[in-house]
Amino acid sequence: MSTTALHGKSFIGKEPSAEGRRSFLATNPATGATLEPHFREASLGEANRALSLAERAFTELRCRPPAERAAFLDRIADEILELGDALIERAVEETGLPSARIQGERARTVGQLRMFANLIREGSWVDARIDHAAPERKPAPKPDVRRMLVSIGPVIVFGASNFPLAFSVAGGDTASALAAGNPVIVKAHRAHPGTGELVARAILQAAEKTDMPDGVFSFLHGAGSELGAHLVRHPAAKAVAFTGSLSGGRALFDMAASRPEPIPVYAEMSSVNPVFVLPGALKARADELAAGLHQSVTLGVGQFCTNPGLLVGLKSDEWSLLTTRLKDLISSTSPGTMLHVGIREGYEAGTRNLASVSGVSVAARSSLAADAARTQAQAMLFTAEASTFLEKRELSEEIFGPSTLLLTCGSRAELESIARNLHGHLTATVQGTAQDLLEYAELVRILETKVGRLLFNGYPTGVEVCPSMHHGGPYPATSYSHFTSVGTAAILRFTRPLCYQGFPEEALPPELRDSNERGIWRLVDGQFGR
Amino acid sequence: MSTTALHGKSFIGKEPSAEGRRSFLATNPATGATLEPHFREASLGEANRALSLAERAFTELRCRPPAERAAFLDRIADEILELGDALIERAVEETGLPSARIQGERARTVGQLRMFANLIREGSWVDARIDHAAPERKPAPKPDVRRMLVSIGPVIVFGASNFPLAFSVAGGDTASALAAGNPVIVKAHRAHPGTGELVARAILQAAEKTDMPDGVFSFLHGAGSELGAHLVRHPAAKAVAFTGSLSGGRALFDMAASRPEPIPVYAEMSSVNPVFVLPGALKARADELAAGLHQSVTLGVGQFCTNPGLLVGLKSDEWSLLTTRLKDLISSTSPGTMLHVGIREGYEAGTRNLASVSGVSVAARSSLAADAARTQAQAMLFTAEASTFLEKRELSEEIFGPSTLLLTCGSRAELESIARNLHGHLTATVQGTAQDLLEYAELVRILETKVGRLLFNGYPTGVEVCPSMHHGGPYPATSYSHFTSVGTAAILRFTRPLCYQGFPEEALPPELRDSNERGIWRLVDGQFGR
Repeated sequence: MSTTALHGKSFIGKEPSAEGRRSFLATNPATGATLEPHFREASLGEANRALSLAERAFTELRCRPPAERAAFLDRIADEILELGDALIERAVEETGLPSARIQGERARTVGQLRMFANLIREGSWVDARIDHAAPERKPAPKPDVRRMLVSIGPVIVFGASNFPLAFSVAGGDTASALAAGNPVIVKAHRAHPGTGELVARAILQAAEKTDMPDGVFSFLHGAGSELGAHLVRHPAAKAVAFTGSLSGGRALFDMAASRPEPIPVYAEMSSVNPVFVLPGALKARADELAAGLHQSVTLGVGQFCTNPGLLVGLKSDEWSLLTTRLKDLISSTSPGTMLHVGIREGYEAGTRNLASVSGVSVAARSSLAADAARTQAQAMLFTAEASTFLEKRELSEEIFGPSTLLLTCGSRAELESIARNLHGHLTATVQGTAQDLLEYAELVRILETKVGRLLFNGYPTGVEVCPSMHHGGPYPATSYSHFTSVGTAAILRFTRPLCYQGFPEEALPPELRDSNERGIWRLVDGQFGR
Repeated sequence: MSTTALHGKSFIGKEPSAEGRRSFLATNPATGATLEPHFREASLGEANRALSLAERAFTELRCRPPAERAAFLDRIADEILELGDALIERAVEETGLPSARIQGERARTVGQLRMFANLIREGSWVDARIDHAAPERKPAPKPDVRRMLVSIGPVIVFGASNFPLAFSVAGGDTASALAAGNPVIVKAHRAHPGTGELVARAILQAAEKTDMPDGVFSFLHGAGSELGAHLVRHPAAKAVAFTGSLSGGRALFDMAASRPEPIPVYAEMSSVNPVFVLPGALKARADELAAGLHQSVTLGVGQFCTNPGLLVGLKSDEWSLLTTRLKDLISSTSPGTMLHVGIREGYEAGTRNLASVSGVSVAARSSLAADAARTQAQAMLFTAEASTFLEKRELSEEIFGPSTLLLTCGSRAELESIARNLHGHLTATVQGTAQDLLEYAELVRILETKVGRLLFNGYPTGVEVCPSMHHGGPYPATSYSHFTSVGTAAILRFTRPLCYQGFPEEALPPELRDSNERGIWRLVDGQFGR
């Protein structure tokens, strides 16, 4: 498929539709050039139609066997791969990300779809529980009670700008919501609408080939906030997934919470991902740490939610050495093209504000100037004393981009105090030796209460997609720390338990029949087994 | 312990405290007599102290082995039993509930505490997952990632009026929050403050005997809404559990959602629990059904969240027979004492409003008059055509008490339409034969999307406490349909996953070590086992 075949329309169910009056163009951030075609913003009427189709699709989808949904997910993966270079090229044009990165992200996206297909094919994720009746029990007979997780209804997914594939149209949110048995309506990110259209087509092709009900998936363009707000407030919507800014996520959360029927918004919003460098590690490998931290800070022009924006260490010769090395590395970092002008402007404003705080120094920045026409940003290193951080809350705020703030502590107590004063983050990292871990056990104890994922001797960027991954964390990292947006547990967001009492075997879903024909793991009368 | 020993104070951690200026008395609803002593409302300063103690207790509690928390829960159960008749007597006085009912509820309360003790002693509930490293993986090495559920911090529990033991001070919310490793602050229900004080003492005795940190539990009196609002808005509070009215639950939900850091409110609020009586069942056992429904409607003077407030059947001779039998049974039902004057007034207003709706008839009411001085309410049976229900949303609202609305449908389509127009409920019940289940499969499919628990040939009152129970449901039944307030899964409300990446074995919690010294069920590299 050639990208010139893009039609710039939304998809209301399987039908392309372009009833809105406004349109917009994507821009290549690396050149500033606009990209054809025009994308027509969806009207609220189109949104209503998508929701009503989704409601209808839901009644059918929820009764289909999981194997059919698994085939759909696998087919989406195939169709995405079949888009071939056209997808890679358009994504590169719309995001300024290198081709290799987009290819890697495509592999991840396809992998996620297959992971959820396998998860629901295997089936144990429904957390089936059976308690058999005991009619003779005194004082009252015990009824037969069984429960499993089921789907909830139409899910609204907001694509992220920084993962045009893996957290966007067919990303982890869409894959997990579909896997659970819910129709999905994607509000496309305006920065990569063509990439979105290509992926939406792949999903709809897959839906047709695997005989999914019309409305299982819709895809809507919208450049402002009106469309998204309408979707979130619509009574047919049952949950929302969002990855983006704190202000955007909080706005959606507030809208959803104030509905007559509140619905959950799973928003992944803001994280500074502090890294604590302990003395033993500093002694052993200050150079290596400087290189690793530099790479993690500047990877993808710093546009990751797990970007380490805060480096904390104790005043020492080794810490000074690490600081000096990091300065050199940051200075020699070429300015990089950011995803879009809005992100670049946010980065410029954020770093300007931070630089203006008394007690904060700009220790280094890319020696080459950033070319605004190419949406470039300089890497930056800020330094401050720990006491400044403790006094000034603005130092805790996320700056999305290739900068980090290095804090020097005068004592272990001060270092722990930094940890204690953190708000919620996705991750925190401890760099240390086995001996450091013993000596700084209290630091680890504190960090456990602040984040969703604790790393030892690693770097927070690069989130493994696996059953044990938790990509979530206390507010403001996410809106709800109980849930993850990465890994198999992401499916739980779009489910609820349904309990059957006293139903005959043949009227129960297969997962809850005594015969356990699907061979899934279950908790039967308090015992795990299958 | 004699109830005359009640001091009427709050407990801030283990210390009795009475700094507030206002006080109130409990009332015996069966006599209208006030009961000694005066209970002093907690001040906001006392609330702050309780929260700050809870925060401190949390840092200790979360690092204690689960066996210590299990011993605490078991000890609470023992201490409650040791309160003996004093507890039963005071609870009967404060609630008007019969002694046998309170004894049964005490058994349930003690059973719940022991169930959660056993759950955390066994340990598999933490949903431990381990993915081992694969350093050689291409293109990137796979890290070692492990996760488990952990506690979240201080939990605010609002006691329910209708379960003075099982959903109150040491009820399911408190037991599950403590089991997960969180300190609990109970806002006592003003209708049974003496019962609450006795149970609070039992908890604090148990805390002392099992060496729990001070602040693991606090107990606050408050007659209005100010104290509760303050607790929910306080930054130290991390979750809220509430059982009560829709207006009360929604108010707390809104407060918590609008905090700078929103926290979850698990509110169980409102449910009408429709019962669909299908033709085969009617033919076979109309009399028995009338008796069973009457018992379920009037049990505990109708003061259960699972009370069946809507009975739906198809026009037929058998349905007329059931209606006539039910009228007789309701007429011959003695008026019963409700829990407190507020509930009685709500019931009077609700039934008056319903009776005034055109198309709704009062088909029967207790033939004996209700004695307001004894807080009595009459049982009531309302009837209407299905079409009236479909036109008038006010017929869907819960009336808390011993009344039910019987709807007659002209066709199966109309019966399904009733189901389709339901909002969320805790339960729905189908009474039928195996043949009915086949013929009305579509009805069951619809009801599956409306409730948390579906019953076949049972009655919704009487909620079994077991791993497969789900006591929750779509809004407005609860604020969040993903969670249950009854059964072992209730513990999940007060947890979040915590993920460790790259940590050495000895620095991991026991649940995540390869050695699996606790022998719990885990998902290791995608395979369940222990």
